[in-house]
Amino acid sequence: MSSSQLRIVVIGGSAAGPKAAAKARRMDEHASITLVQREPDLSMASCGFPYYVGGTFDDRNLLICTPAGIVRDPAFYGKAKAIDARVETEALAVDRDAKTVTCEHLPSGERCTLPYDRLIIATGASPMCPSAPGFELDGVLTLHSMADADALRAVRDEHKATKAIVVGGGLIGFEVCEALRLAGIDTTVVEKTTQILPFLDPDLAKLVENHIRAHGPDIIVGNGVAEFLGEDGSLVGVKLDNGTELPCQVAVVAVGVRPNVGLAMACGIEIGDTGGIRVNECMQTSDPDVYAVGDCVECTSLITGQKLRAPYGDIANLQGRVAGRNVVHEGSARFPGITQTGICKIFDYTVGFTGLSAQRAAEAGLSVETATISGLDIPVFMGGKLLISKMVAERGSGRIVGFQCIGPGDVSKRVAVVATAIRGGLTVADMVNADLPYAPPYSLALDHVIVAAHVLENKLEGRMQGLSVSEVKQRVDSGADCFLLDTRSPAEFEQMRLGVGETLIPLGALRDRLDELPQDKDREVILYCKISLRGYEGAAILNAHGWRNVKVMEGGLMAWPYPREK
Amino acid sequence: MSSSQLRIVVIGGSAAGPKAAAKARRMDEHASITLVQREPDLSMASCGFPYYVGGTFDDRNLLICTPAGIVRDPAFYGKAKAIDARVETEALAVDRDAKTVTCEHLPSGERCTLPYDRLIIATGASPMCPSAPGFELDGVLTLHSMADADALRAVRDEHKATKAIVVGGGLIGFEVCEALRLAGIDTTVVEKTTQILPFLDPDLAKLVENHIRAHGPDIIVGNGVAEFLGEDGSLVGVKLDNGTELPCQVAVVAVGVRPNVGLAMACGIEIGDTGGIRVNECMQTSDPDVYAVGDCVECTSLITGQKLRAPYGDIANLQGRVAGRNVVHEGSARFPGITQTGICKIFDYTVGFTGLSAQRAAEAGLSVETATISGLDIPVFMGGKLLISKMVAERGSGRIVGFQCIGPGDVSKRVAVVATAIRGGLTVADMVNADLPYAPPYSLALDHVIVAAHVLENKLEGRMQGLSVSEVKQRVDSGADCFLLDTRSPAEFEQMRLGVGETLIPLGALRDRLDELPQDKDREVILYCKISLRGYEGAAILNAHGWRNVKVMEGGLMAWPYPREK
Repeated sequence: MSSSQLRIVVIGGSAAGPKAAAKARRMDEHASITLVQREPDLSMASCGFPYYVGGTFDDRNLLICTPAGIVRDPAFYGKAKAIDARVETEALAVDRDAKTVTCEHLPSGERCTLPYDRLIIATGASPMCPSAPGFELDGVLTLHSMADADALRAVRDEHKATKAIVVGGGLIGFEVCEALRLAGIDTTVVEKTTQILPFLDPDLAKLVENHIRAHGPDIIVGNGVAEFLGEDGSLVGVKLDNGTELPCQVAVVAVGVRPNVGLAMACGIEIGDTGGIRVNECMQTSDPDVYAVGDCVECTSLITGQKLRAPYGDIANLQGRVAGRNVVHEGSARFPGITQTGICKIFDYTVGFTGLSAQRAAEAGLSVETATISGLDIPVFMGGKLLISKMVAERGSGRIVGFQCIGPGDVSKRVAVVATAIRGGLTVADMVNADLPYAPPYSLALDHVIVAAHVLENKLEGRMQGLSVSEVKQRVDSGADCFLLDTRSPAEFEQMRLGVGETLIPLGALRDRLDELPQDKDREVILYCKISLRGYEGAAILNAHGWRNVKVMEGGLMAWPYPREK
Repeated sequence: MSSSQLRIVVIGGSAAGPKAAAKARRMDEHASITLVQREPDLSMASCGFPYYVGGTFDDRNLLICTPAGIVRDPAFYGKAKAIDARVETEALAVDRDAKTVTCEHLPSGERCTLPYDRLIIATGASPMCPSAPGFELDGVLTLHSMADADALRAVRDEHKATKAIVVGGGLIGFEVCEALRLAGIDTTVVEKTTQILPFLDPDLAKLVENHIRAHGPDIIVGNGVAEFLGEDGSLVGVKLDNGTELPCQVAVVAVGVRPNVGLAMACGIEIGDTGGIRVNECMQTSDPDVYAVGDCVECTSLITGQKLRAPYGDIANLQGRVAGRNVVHEGSARFPGITQTGICKIFDYTVGFTGLSAQRAAEAGLSVETATISGLDIPVFMGGKLLISKMVAERGSGRIVGFQCIGPGDVSKRVAVVATAIRGGLTVADMVNADLPYAPPYSLALDHVIVAAHVLENKLEGRMQGLSVSEVKQRVDSGADCFLLDTRSPAEFEQMRLGVGETLIPLGALRDRLDELPQDKDREVILYCKISLRGYEGAAILNAHGWRNVKVMEGGLMAWPYPREK
């Protein structure tokens, strides 16, 4: 080792750590780089675990291979990257004065002390456990480590379990739910709060709920797990907060993760208010020679400026790259923050979001307007599939601050586009004229996100008053004095309708049949059609003829998550 | 008609015109709106013609129906939108002083004069014809109108034609090529210039060419059609500029379109240097009461500020909406310009682009850096498909100005993201940390566009010297004194290799085998692997060990469009 050789130690070998180490190597061929990893595996594709568990693929090695098929083990790291990767090795303590890390090789109990010039902490996060007793029973699992994935895959392969409970109605919970269902297991998701998928606004979450139920799994909201019930040390059921007992042989807990900050705390590194390690844009902690990346740190929201935690694999990789550069050339790279973007496949639906929901925007103190739309991703004649979206923009500035999109259509593209728009600070006025790639196999002439921007612009500029489906449902349930107007054709009305007392007047007949509308022009008239485009056109007609309280039910029948007459 | 009623006349009923009329109606329920359309159909989904011709769907009505299944005929426009839509009616002249349009109903020859307060010109464009004689022969077609689509669909349905020529190697040309091939017709595309798909840089265009040939059609570049050869008034072949004669019963000419500006010119409306009608951001012509939209106008490039023509259906719709607002409330809406984004399905490939290719950036006087990468769209274990991309950014500012993407993978999302990034003025430094929706069914942990930005950043910051595959091919062909180093495994080398004199040293062995490299450290060493990630890692090693002329072949073997040894 030459005296000028930079010594880099990386603690954590799952995602952010290996990325940081590999990037540091490319920045400095001569540095000494040591990576310690408590688990036996390195650089696991942990986001792929649900698909291995669910049988999308069967070769476990694919989770820990390079694209060229080489297992990312210590030998690979040694040869290809000249990184001394030590698995089953736990970092016990950091001495920031001496600049050393004390490690223990877990199988042998051997200890060693690694000196560093720069330290990267990538200790990740651990699954949170509900406070319910019985968590230690056989059959109660999480899906976080390779060992977890192996255990859940065994559940699939052994064909013994018939009933499973997933605790937690977030992204991971539903990925696990689908995997278990695909394994032929009768699965119920239990969510303590009143809504699944908390990054969605409730109306969209309800549509996703319907979709999941249609594929078999049950969902229970507003009810947590009070106890895991066992017999002879094995899970036989769960007891919910309301006393209900559900038999099951498997329970998977997916109620979120907690950043692993013990090591950082113990050596006096500053922890942020969110519970993650505080870092600057360079991923540098309160000690300039110590960096931190991945699930153990807190991030900055590019929308609100607030600190938050974002335990996602892509963010971990981005941060790892930044830290890997900065440990070699301090200050050479920055990670300014995130927009909070996520996506999840749930059966035939994709559920995606970026930025803030209307609820979260309100919590952040923003005054926003929203637009909910339904529509196809590509033309009918190309086999178009439904998308239901909600775009959120700040009043005044018009800045887009959020987008949720669900459905069987190509959600991923639309979320990626709006995530990029948010990053670029685009306003609704910009998005209404977006120049996106158009050809019938890929898009409508006016892409779904553009239409969302059009509707949002119409609302921001006062050309349309919208009501959410839940607002309409409340009116219906409370017997409010409103006039519901379905503007579709009689044939469409025969096939499918709300049946809540609405009147059918097809848009094409509306101008001739205005006398059938409430003659009290202050009475609330609510229009809709299948997707509420014809509803909107009808509203413009009524407004022009003097009705003063005209609303459109946004998203139309396609966004209605409640029971219909037919 | 009340005296205060706004009179709007729209000339043209294909895309921009109907959109403008419909939007104007929603802005002003009481306006009188008349639309004249020379063709018998209204608001045709003309971008869908190739898929009707190719048999993706068989119901012609789908091209002229609303999503609810109603044919967009004059009755529909009258009922649903209170628009007086007159088909088979040609606008003969505009009198801007009298503010009238003189029209002729073509079947009857009846003329009428329509007074207007605001006029919208949406006269579209017409297919350009090559100057070759024989264009009038039976069997020589274009694909522009419904009648064209019907004629080409008849070619499919009649099973008579066995050989077809497509004249023009642009987007429409290849959509038609695929449609004819799917109809079982032996098809050859003839392109006068030396490259197909002129918005791509040549290396990527060459890969697309290979893909098309693999599906059957032949492609001839650098050779135009000199003559359409006929017998008894019917096409029997084409003669090329170099004298070659190719027998065929069908020839489809797709060499671009020319804006229809005759009517505008005749009444003294200003025409821009590009040949399209000049408009301001409000889509207003040189006459403030006359607007123009769609294929007949010129647009502004948001990247260069230059004027250009963009005859795309999505742009027409966006412009129509803006004009529809402005005819009612002058100055209330703007269409600032385009980034030039396009996409096309060609067999199993998608070909997309946004902004400028390296060639076009150079023509526009920009100094740019580029990065070409290959990679999967989603993980191997989820069935990932290949993408090959080239990102273009301005030196200095780092502003992204272009992106091309081809391959069997999800091109559309990546092009849409970069189009939005360009619109937002994002730099490479912004894109390296993009927060995009990540889950294995949709993306790698670091999405393809992010990796492209990473490589481009490496190049901009001098950490990587790249060579394009064509630059490497030139060196190979000219016997240049360079050392080609393949950094893959022996097994991969056995399966596939260039066989141009390269040396195989797997990345993992490189540090131990540096003595096998040229000891003249100024000699050019060119590294690559399958996608050139390992090539790049190898280059970093060589640079660190004193080699001073180390290059990476960008995109690796996956981007190599020339013959290989195996």
